[in-house]
Amino acid sequence: MAENNDKHPSRRAFLAGAAAVGTLATQSRAQSDPAISVQPWMQELGDGVDAAPYGVPSPFEADVKRRNVEWLTADPVSSVNFTPLHDLDGIITPNGLCFERHHSGVARVDPAQHRLMIHGLVERPLVFTMEDLKRFPRENHVYSLECAANSGMEWRGAQLNGCQFTHGMIHNVMYTGIPLRLLLEEAGVGTEGKWLLAEGADAAAMTRSIPMEKALDDCLVAFKMNGEALRPEQGYPLRLVVPGWEGNMWVKWLRRLEVGDQPWHHREETSKYTDLLEDGTARRFTWEMDAKSVITNPSPQAPITHGPGPTVLTGLAWSGRGTIPRVDVTLDGGKNWQEARIDGPSLPKSLHRFYFEFDWDGSPLLLQSRAHDSTGYVQPTKAELRAFRGVNSIYHNNGIQTWAVAADGSAENVEIS
Amino acid sequence: MAENNDKHPSRRAFLAGAAAVGTLATQSRAQSDPAISVQPWMQELGDGVDAAPYGVPSPFEADVKRRNVEWLTADPVSSVNFTPLHDLDGIITPNGLCFERHHSGVARVDPAQHRLMIHGLVERPLVFTMEDLKRFPRENHVYSLECAANSGMEWRGAQLNGCQFTHGMIHNVMYTGIPLRLLLEEAGVGTEGKWLLAEGADAAAMTRSIPMEKALDDCLVAFKMNGEALRPEQGYPLRLVVPGWEGNMWVKWLRRLEVGDQPWHHREETSKYTDLLEDGTARRFTWEMDAKSVITNPSPQAPITHGPGPTVLTGLAWSGRGTIPRVDVTLDGGKNWQEARIDGPSLPKSLHRFYFEFDWDGSPLLLQSRAHDSTGYVQPTKAELRAFRGVNSIYHNNGIQTWAVAADGSAENVEIS
Repeated sequence: MAENNDKHPSRRAFLAGAAAVGTLATQSRAQSDPAISVQPWMQELGDGVDAAPYGVPSPFEADVKRRNVEWLTADPVSSVNFTPLHDLDGIITPNGLCFERHHSGVARVDPAQHRLMIHGLVERPLVFTMEDLKRFPRENHVYSLECAANSGMEWRGAQLNGCQFTHGMIHNVMYTGIPLRLLLEEAGVGTEGKWLLAEGADAAAMTRSIPMEKALDDCLVAFKMNGEALRPEQGYPLRLVVPGWEGNMWVKWLRRLEVGDQPWHHREETSKYTDLLEDGTARRFTWEMDAKSVITNPSPQAPITHGPGPTVLTGLAWSGRGTIPRVDVTLDGGKNWQEARIDGPSLPKSLHRFYFEFDWDGSPLLLQSRAHDSTGYVQPTKAELRAFRGVNSIYHNNGIQTWAVAADGSAENVEIS
Repeated sequence: MAENNDKHPSRRAFLAGAAAVGTLATQSRAQSDPAISVQPWMQELGDGVDAAPYGVPSPFEADVKRRNVEWLTADPVSSVNFTPLHDLDGIITPNGLCFERHHSGVARVDPAQHRLMIHGLVERPLVFTMEDLKRFPRENHVYSLECAANSGMEWRGAQLNGCQFTHGMIHNVMYTGIPLRLLLEEAGVGTEGKWLLAEGADAAAMTRSIPMEKALDDCLVAFKMNGEALRPEQGYPLRLVVPGWEGNMWVKWLRRLEVGDQPWHHREETSKYTDLLEDGTARRFTWEMDAKSVITNPSPQAPITHGPGPTVLTGLAWSGRGTIPRVDVTLDGGKNWQEARIDGPSLPKSLHRFYFEFDWDGSPLLLQSRAHDSTGYVQPTKAELRAFRGVNSIYHNNGIQTWAVAADGSAENVEIS
């Protein structure tokens, strides 16, 4: 295959590719060319401004949607709806497409009746209405939220055919919220307060223990995402934001924060969300999400449809520890690696968008990406992960993903040794 | 009124305020307190993940919507739907709430039939399909788009009661697109190519002349906003992004780019979108949007409902020339100014979010904000603007806005000398 060996696509290499595009386009020009004809939508008035007080996508985008996997769970009230990563670009996930995972369905909370209580080892137990909370100083941060089980099906080999299903338990939005530190200081937390229990107002009463050090560091009690109120499936009207840590700690429909001197060992941190190793022991409290990346295009749900020539490869990379200064890409299953171009804001604990433009000669490809984070950590292969952790777990699989692209442009999820 | 005189709220001032919140909350605790009782949504299962492939806001947020003003235009197909700035926070505008302005309604474009043609003074006239365009390198940028007529009704005095209507012709999203420069270079633009005509595929065939210098600088041909496809009312499937310049140049449903040696003097740059002065002459080609700001809360649509005590004032500031390093706020109509706290990413030609936390003593307020941009430009008063430009224009009013807050917390749009 013919590759672009420059770190950033050179002017000459780019023009060589683009000329082919131009030629293709020019070849197709004819009397019936839509560029020359006056199309129907130029001959009629469209909808007025009174048509959509809250806008929705074009009907032509109906296939861009969250998808669940029916056989994955016993009931849709305790299941997952995956983000269509292959349909997106940039780093912001639109609210309507943010993956959702809940344990008792989407709680229908009335914000006027919702309360947040802080109690336990505090000087002043407090109860806040939503209006009370909006009198505290706010901050705005873009953070990625990844489920600990993202890519979990892949531990035992390539299972799911599409990045929506292998990597779609992640989203990235701008949160507006109150630093949790301010609320805890208001309640008065002394030196004996070492742990915090966060509880949701859903029927599952989702609970997780969080060390006080993290709670006082960068956690937020958030009420907005991407500018507007949290969506119901994301915890409306209030959720905990625990930057860089696994998604189920970001307790939704947040109603209670209890301060204690030790963890609570609840269900979601013992029976679930622990990592069973080969010897029968389990890793616990593996909160931080390791550096990871995935190529979103081309991928099984987004094959190459244009044939050989200039091709844009793109993907996402992230780390629970900081920023992503570098992503490598290989087209041949790891024989040769080249540095991708990262574009858009580089924010800590946020998705990063990378691109690699190349001139595809039409031969089969083995695509992989490898993230480096700001601590120097490098994303491992799945084989390296399995050597240490076995294949019993379903959590914290951040191994390198491989897509095999065939000569016809179709792609599938494969494992290579 | 008791003000917080610190540039950033001090720990002590904050705690004094927060304690009041705590006391208020504690006073309301009782057997019927929702924090103690088990609420209905904790006793039932919610919707499963199969309920909403594309998510929507909570029913409790039904009032958060774009609004039009029926008397403003003759027909809703050529009108405006304003962004509810008072309901939002952070800097990202969710796609469903981005203001819309069109001249012949929302064109219903089929992306498979859509073409972009580049012709005129070029070496190689080109026609691109959407798939062709997606083979070019992409960039991601957050930019604000402001209509030249934003705040236009205010030239002759306070008219509209709410920042949604006075300032709601602005939105701020992350665009993914191709640098326009790359497409023009592909077509081959020589030294005689001084101007570009951009044309939309709506029934109005919206057209604007753009100087080549700007076209080659930072313009994008965008196909995504906030990660997903452009919304129909924002030009689906393709729009021009002209950072920092007035919104009607960001041609939607982009179908044609013609290169020429002089401007075209079309309707939207002669009869409209020019600034009529007192002497009967008009300023033309006033593309760049000057630095501006508005307090979004409190405001007429968002009164203070919690009574005296800790109060969060917040708003937005922006400049077509760069970033906003500083915003000043006054609570007394300009007698005393204090620096607000800017929070969240500070990106060029993007909205900036500011906050000012203060302890309201319940007396009337005259709220104003004043933006400083990275070129040193300072937002003027409306009186200063009128002294130079008269009151004939409806465009480019970036004067300081005043909200009068009464003792009961209600607010209205006023003018002060």
